[in-house]
Amino acid sequence: MTEQKTWSQRFESALHPAIALFNASITFDIELIEYDITGSIAHAKMLAHTGIISTQEGEQLVAGLEQIRSEYHQGQFNPGIEAEDVHFAVERRLTEILGDVGKKLHTARSRNDQVGTDTRLYLRSQISLIQTQIREFQRVLLELAEVNVETLIPGYTHLQRAQPVSLAHHLLAYFQMLQRDWERLGDVYRRTNISPLGCGALAGTTFPIDRHYTAELLDFAGVYENSLDGVSDRDFAIEFLCASSLIMVHLSRFSEEIILWASEEFGFVKLKDSCATGSSIMPQKKNPDVPELVRGKTGRVFGHLQALLVLMKGLPLAYNKDLQEDKEALFDSVKTIKSCLEAMKILLAEGLEFRPERLSTAVNSDFSNATDVADYLAARGVPFREAYNLVGKVVRICLEKGKLLKDLTLVEWQELHPAFEEDIYSAIAPSQVVAARNSYGGTGFEQVRLALKNARTQIQA
Amino acid sequence: MTEQKTWSQRFESALHPAIALFNASITFDIELIEYDITGSIAHAKMLAHTGIISTQEGEQLVAGLEQIRSEYHQGQFNPGIEAEDVHFAVERRLTEILGDVGKKLHTARSRNDQVGTDTRLYLRSQISLIQTQIREFQRVLLELAEVNVETLIPGYTHLQRAQPVSLAHHLLAYFQMLQRDWERLGDVYRRTNISPLGCGALAGTTFPIDRHYTAELLDFAGVYENSLDGVSDRDFAIEFLCASSLIMVHLSRFSEEIILWASEEFGFVKLKDSCATGSSIMPQKKNPDVPELVRGKTGRVFGHLQALLVLMKGLPLAYNKDLQEDKEALFDSVKTIKSCLEAMKILLAEGLEFRPERLSTAVNSDFSNATDVADYLAARGVPFREAYNLVGKVVRICLEKGKLLKDLTLVEWQELHPAFEEDIYSAIAPSQVVAARNSYGGTGFEQVRLALKNARTQIQA
Amino acid sequence: MTEQKTWSQRFESALHPAIALFNASITFDIELIEYDITGSIAHAKMLAHTGIISTQEGEQLVAGLEQIRSEYHQGQFNPGIEAEDVHFAVERRLTEILGDVGKKLHTARSRNDQVGTDTRLYLRSQISLIQTQIREFQRVLLELAEVNVETLIPGYTHLQRAQPVSLAHHLLAYFQMLQRDWERLGDVYRRTNISPLGCGALAGTTFPIDRHYTAELLDFAGVYENSLDGVSDRDFAIEFLCASSLIMVHLSRFSEEIILWASEEFGFVKLKDSCATGSSIMPQKKNPDVPELVRGKTGRVFGHLQALLVLMKGLPLAYNKDLQEDKEALFDSVKTIKSCLEAMKILLAEGLEFRPERLSTAVNSDFSNATDVADYLAARGVPFREAYNLVGKVVRICLEKGKLLKDLTLVEWQELHPAFEEDIYSAIAPSQVVAARNSYGGTGFEQVRLALKNARTQIQA
Amino acid sequence: MTEQKTWSQRFESALHPAIALFNASITFDIELIEYDITGSIAHAKMLAHTGIISTQEGEQLVAGLEQIRSEYHQGQFNPGIEAEDVHFAVERRLTEILGDVGKKLHTARSRNDQVGTDTRLYLRSQISLIQTQIREFQRVLLELAEVNVETLIPGYTHLQRAQPVSLAHHLLAYFQMLQRDWERLGDVYRRTNISPLGCGALAGTTFPIDRHYTAELLDFAGVYENSLDGVSDRDFAIEFLCASSLIMVHLSRFSEEIILWASEEFGFVKLKDSCATGSSIMPQKKNPDVPELVRGKTGRVFGHLQALLVLMKGLPLAYNKDLQEDKEALFDSVKTIKSCLEAMKILLAEGLEFRPERLSTAVNSDFSNATDVADYLAARGVPFREAYNLVGKVVRICLEKGKLLKDLTLVEWQELHPAFEEDIYSAIAPSQVVAARNSYGGTGFEQVRLALKNARTQIQA
Repeated sequence: MTEQKTWSQRFESALHPAIALFNASITFDIELIEYDITGSIAHAKMLAHTGIISTQEGEQLVAGLEQIRSEYHQGQFNPGIEAEDVHFAVERRLTEILGDVGKKLHTARSRNDQVGTDTRLYLRSQISLIQTQIREFQRVLLELAEVNVETLIPGYTHLQRAQPVSLAHHLLAYFQMLQRDWERLGDVYRRTNISPLGCGALAGTTFPIDRHYTAELLDFAGVYENSLDGVSDRDFAIEFLCASSLIMVHLSRFSEEIILWASEEFGFVKLKDSCATGSSIMPQKKNPDVPELVRGKTGRVFGHLQALLVLMKGLPLAYNKDLQEDKEALFDSVKTIKSCLEAMKILLAEGLEFRPERLSTAVNSDFSNATDVADYLAARGVPFREAYNLVGKVVRICLEKGKLLKDLTLVEWQELHPAFEEDIYSAIAPSQVVAARNSYGGTGFEQVRLALKNARTQIQA
Repeated sequence: MTEQKTWSQRFESALHPAIALFNASITFDIELIEYDITGSIAHAKMLAHTGIISTQEGEQLVAGLEQIRSEYHQGQFNPGIEAEDVHFAVERRLTEILGDVGKKLHTARSRNDQVGTDTRLYLRSQISLIQTQIREFQRVLLELAEVNVETLIPGYTHLQRAQPVSLAHHLLAYFQMLQRDWERLGDVYRRTNISPLGCGALAGTTFPIDRHYTAELLDFAGVYENSLDGVSDRDFAIEFLCASSLIMVHLSRFSEEIILWASEEFGFVKLKDSCATGSSIMPQKKNPDVPELVRGKTGRVFGHLQALLVLMKGLPLAYNKDLQEDKEALFDSVKTIKSCLEAMKILLAEGLEFRPERLSTAVNSDFSNATDVADYLAARGVPFREAYNLVGKVVRICLEKGKLLKDLTLVEWQELHPAFEEDIYSAIAPSQVVAARNSYGGTGFEQVRLALKNARTQIQA
Repeated sequence: MTEQKTWSQRFESALHPAIALFNASITFDIELIEYDITGSIAHAKMLAHTGIISTQEGEQLVAGLEQIRSEYHQGQFNPGIEAEDVHFAVERRLTEILGDVGKKLHTARSRNDQVGTDTRLYLRSQISLIQTQIREFQRVLLELAEVNVETLIPGYTHLQRAQPVSLAHHLLAYFQMLQRDWERLGDVYRRTNISPLGCGALAGTTFPIDRHYTAELLDFAGVYENSLDGVSDRDFAIEFLCASSLIMVHLSRFSEEIILWASEEFGFVKLKDSCATGSSIMPQKKNPDVPELVRGKTGRVFGHLQALLVLMKGLPLAYNKDLQEDKEALFDSVKTIKSCLEAMKILLAEGLEFRPERLSTAVNSDFSNATDVADYLAARGVPFREAYNLVGKVVRICLEKGKLLKDLTLVEWQELHPAFEEDIYSAIAPSQVVAARNSYGGTGFEQVRLALKNARTQIQA
Repeated sequence: MTEQKTWSQRFESALHPAIALFNASITFDIELIEYDITGSIAHAKMLAHTGIISTQEGEQLVAGLEQIRSEYHQGQFNPGIEAEDVHFAVERRLTEILGDVGKKLHTARSRNDQVGTDTRLYLRSQISLIQTQIREFQRVLLELAEVNVETLIPGYTHLQRAQPVSLAHHLLAYFQMLQRDWERLGDVYRRTNISPLGCGALAGTTFPIDRHYTAELLDFAGVYENSLDGVSDRDFAIEFLCASSLIMVHLSRFSEEIILWASEEFGFVKLKDSCATGSSIMPQKKNPDVPELVRGKTGRVFGHLQALLVLMKGLPLAYNKDLQEDKEALFDSVKTIKSCLEAMKILLAEGLEFRPERLSTAVNSDFSNATDVADYLAARGVPFREAYNLVGKVVRICLEKGKLLKDLTLVEWQELHPAFEEDIYSAIAPSQVVAARNSYGGTGFEQVRLALKNARTQIQA
């Protein structure tokens, strides 16, 4: 199980099998194989470019590495636990294919800078994929918003009805959260896209390598300025997990709302059969499994973030084996984020429908227009605080009588305050209440239409 | 991919394939299959026992379930993603085997109480295994301690040499931490070992079941008193993850010390080839991968603990789909704890040796006997604070001269204070310094021998 | 600002003022003063008891310490930042009062075992207070439950109406969670209630102290077996934070439900003015600030748990200054838990009232009795899965027609299946649906009454 | 204790005193008073600018607010718990000063957008202060590096000696980490520096406000595009806590190294009295409290990050009272980061000195030049893997004989391989080993001088 060939003759006896198993990372770092091969090809080309190996040797290495890639894709390359990690696995296979030339690949390189390069190539690629998914999700939100500008929905603070809003406005709040997520990922990408290749084990190398050349071949925007930092930095992974945690915060908030909306009590949306599940014993049940699972997966990503912070805390320079533990947290977070974005997008695009009659009933049957009564009086010269107090009293009276504000007769209004006139009824109609909030970024229809236009522009950037 | 047979005719169309994949848990909850079958057998027996099904039906169900267990062990039962979860997978196979009788298994039961039962059976079993591993680890520590009572090692506070201690005393500190871990797991076991079976979906069942009977068959110590609580409680899982986090705290502290001890600078231990690895480019390297990885895995378990706390926060009663996310965190923590205990045990038992000459040099070449000089004076009537200050001055002088305390001549001692006599030299010899700390639980050899004896007794409990 | 008298003459110059400020803990560890004095009194008595100091000196020390306690209570003892920590502050004041005798207090003791003793005395006391608060909260729950056995409330899974339950049953679910919290705190108490006093700096002491005597005076159940462990163990603090996190999980779940119940949509409870707040601009608002804040404080306690785990990870033996950071996390968690339990108790006891008419409407207007129709048929010989499917179809038809199950005529029922008879109407009445779930721990009224009786017994234990 | 004047007449009775205390935030949000006043002044100016209030009223409000600021600075304004929060406290005082005009300040504003504005103004300001501190710290590092280019220190991987490096190179690794921290804070600043003012309670306002005008007055770079998002977004706070956590990761790594370096075993640095503390009982002790405390405070910031993530998870739109809990985590993190940067800067600048003789001994007494022997042979035509294996064997032989590589005679070298010549001795001299690693970013002196130059440029940006 353990070939000791990789260690020097300083070692006389073999690794304990249980320890070999404990140390091995091949079971999960095989996920990096594409990036490992790509990174090695760039390294081989650089070795030839700088004359460290011959041009012919460089070409042989590239061809051998491409052959391994091809074997992997065809399912013919399945290294087992004895390979220890993906880097050794590839190097050994290369030596099987090429003989002594294969042994030259690792010249002027260490696994420390190699694994750093692989991880950055992987993450860089995943960030782009996630950014694309965010854009798709934003598009679904925009489409839903565009047909719901005039659909009203109760707006809440403290989960108490506060003021009615345009459903489009509500959906655009999530659009903006995702916009920040997209931008944040761009910043993470920028700090991920730096090459540690050539930092060696920790101190650089005695070979006349060209780090900028490999960086260019691999499309990195720059190189690490300090080799000790280069092999031991995992800031980019932690920063990615923070950005991922915020994505989960946003998706979990949206999920919570959808779960509420799908409840009997709210009844604002109906789940379609394609995105709901039933119960094995209760025949009437239709459960919002997707948003529940998304909400449930939130802690998972937070946990991975904490795991990596804990991992790095107090580690002396430079590389330490602890760093091997960064990968599973990263891989699982990527997988989680991608699957949640996908599931939520499907849910929004095809899995639920808003129930206009329930929304309409809701916005017409509460006191969320009370602020507008106070504003009505204020606009007619009553000091705001006085108006506010008066309206509080009106609400209390209505609650006692089981009435809504619109149910009061004009006489009743005028008994409360002589400033009320017939137009009080139009002033407190939900659509007017919404329309009137026409401040920039507000829910007024005019503003929402402007916001939709701006949003379209934002995602074309 | 999605058989809708499990849902009622309320559903008209099938689940979206991507959503089916997102919802499915079979990829990981297959780990519960043994416990699922065991739980189902108990349930079937109870159904027959209470007359809810016939005796013959009960026997058929048990036989069918045992057949599935056997098929699974022989690698013949490999449910795919279409099975959704392990519970459905088993139930479907049972119905294939038994026909309509198989459909009776789920009578008076819901997946909600079923999965809770499975998880508790699994965890209960894992806790016992971990407790056994802790005992084995403690035994290794005891054996190492027993042969090192008189081996001295510097004792540190603030990583500064403080007072020398018996190596056995140092090892016994970890023994005591693990003793608390063992006890704590016992408490978790107690709160895990409660049966939710029969709580139904949330409210109990209309069938005349006997929950105490299934609890007895499954060797549970009691049953949940409240059905809503029974299906939604995950305290036991969180409590286990807390106990696991503390185990990792202890193992990471020990790991940190071994990493320090194996460094060139400390040089207190030598790693054997069977538990160390080399470098691919630095031929002299011998790396302590095991303790590094253990230290690195610490955050992983902390992260799982956080993930489950976040999962549960703010969830309304009773069962919510979010709870499905408890399993992977639990499974991975169990696996991590078990592999870390195993690797550390091997490391201690066969992977390192203490270097007596280095330890001896260390305890003989510092000022960690300074407190004893102060005590020497105090015992001869000098007020402690005055003695303490004087010794501080002596240390400063020695440092300036590049001397140790033992290097001072009797004349020099007596110039410092007339109370010093020839016996100062024996008073500050490391073995005397250690021996003198003979308070209960202290490092004095007599105390350490007593502690070893008590420790032997503790693990027989 | 910094008297260097505490350090020996090894030190020639004073601490940098900014560093003195950074190091000082007196701003927060003054909270331990009562426990510090109590611990010191026990230590002084032991010193006299064992003859390390004279009886008279012992009495002087005790009297001096009691004087400081009294000064503190009267606001006359307010040590500033120059005191560094509470231990030095008390010792200095003692020396001011007693002169040289005061300097003898610290004989055979170190701040390392002293602070460990103080913290355990503090936490032990707080745990008892919290347990008492839990009992009070449970009593409020019981009283509320006792008058609501026959009040029905929808029971949910996935926040979808599942089956109606007794409100008492629902409240008792929280009673049981708190019961586990109470028990768990008992376990933490047991592991907290161990004396480290006499462990010295790390290795014990050369003085003939009697650790069991101080333990007895301080009412500790035992002493730490190992001095290195004794001065560096913080398991008990982490375990307490885990138990606290679970309390917050339970309170946050209850809070979430109350927030939902107080919403316009659910409308199950009405908040009283004494426990609700308004909005500064929306006159109709009545916000459930208490449960929102409790829910919001949940992360705070989880964060403190994480902080302490991170703190301990990878620390070598024995005491390290890092440990000073354990206190604020602990103090703030204690304060948070106590205030949340208090606020929630007030809210339950006097701050909200259930709205029977809304609850009644709710349980009479949904399909949460659908399982009972399937059971009805099953009891009349229809195979359960066939019955289940049929009822799913009935629900779908009803939804299309805007009817509930109880609205179907007997003719309609019989067209669906000939087994239906007049008694179907009583079978699906909510109170019958609840009553029928008479399995142990279920929501059947008989079971709930039994559960109430058992609960009364539980809290008398 | 509780004036109900802030709520409308919907409320009939007063808040329970314990609940008032539980809800109040004035004890900690008083920290925001400067920003609250600044924000209110901008709001007042905008109200006048847009004609919502008169110019004269606007001037009165500004003057009144400046008076309160001045009163606060002079210690004359100390609102108690009855003020509930800083916003009400200021508004009430303003009304005391100005009468009815004071009541106009809150027109077209809600506490929801107000507190969001205050928090962003606060954090923006703190980020700038922290960035300045980072620059100061970087300068100290640069100065230390500049005088230590040719000081050698062992470079480690796995805490095993790997290859010697320039001390300047080592210090510059931390410079680069802090450079990323500085940049990351810049990104956080950018996303913090957006104005929510004018988002109202959740939906905007009916008044003709000008949000871009207040944003400009307050020097915000933009305004929130969506009012629901604006009042409920706390991404910026979480992102700041993530950036802060990474700062703590870096400081804790450096702290760990300093603690190691200050140990007897490493002995690479000597702590000066101004930045070290002693023991109350061990006269020889000199403890590295500063780096220990910094390392210990790491978990505290991680914990606050976790707390805020948990806080936000699953919160429905828009504002919820839970959000009040964001402040203490933020304030304490700011305070912690600032004090840790300050303490570490002092420690580096004046609290420790490197011990050249110990460093020199270290790099001259190990096998960290072994790679260079392999390179020596490789450069003379021996295949690298063969060379690597041979050197492993040499190391093993030396260890057995108690020799270093430089102790081998030329005859011994040549017996091992005929390619060795006299120049092997210069090739393995530590300074040559360092100099030879001249790849970009490596530790070669030439590279380090280049890196220093680049670093100087970086911090001028």
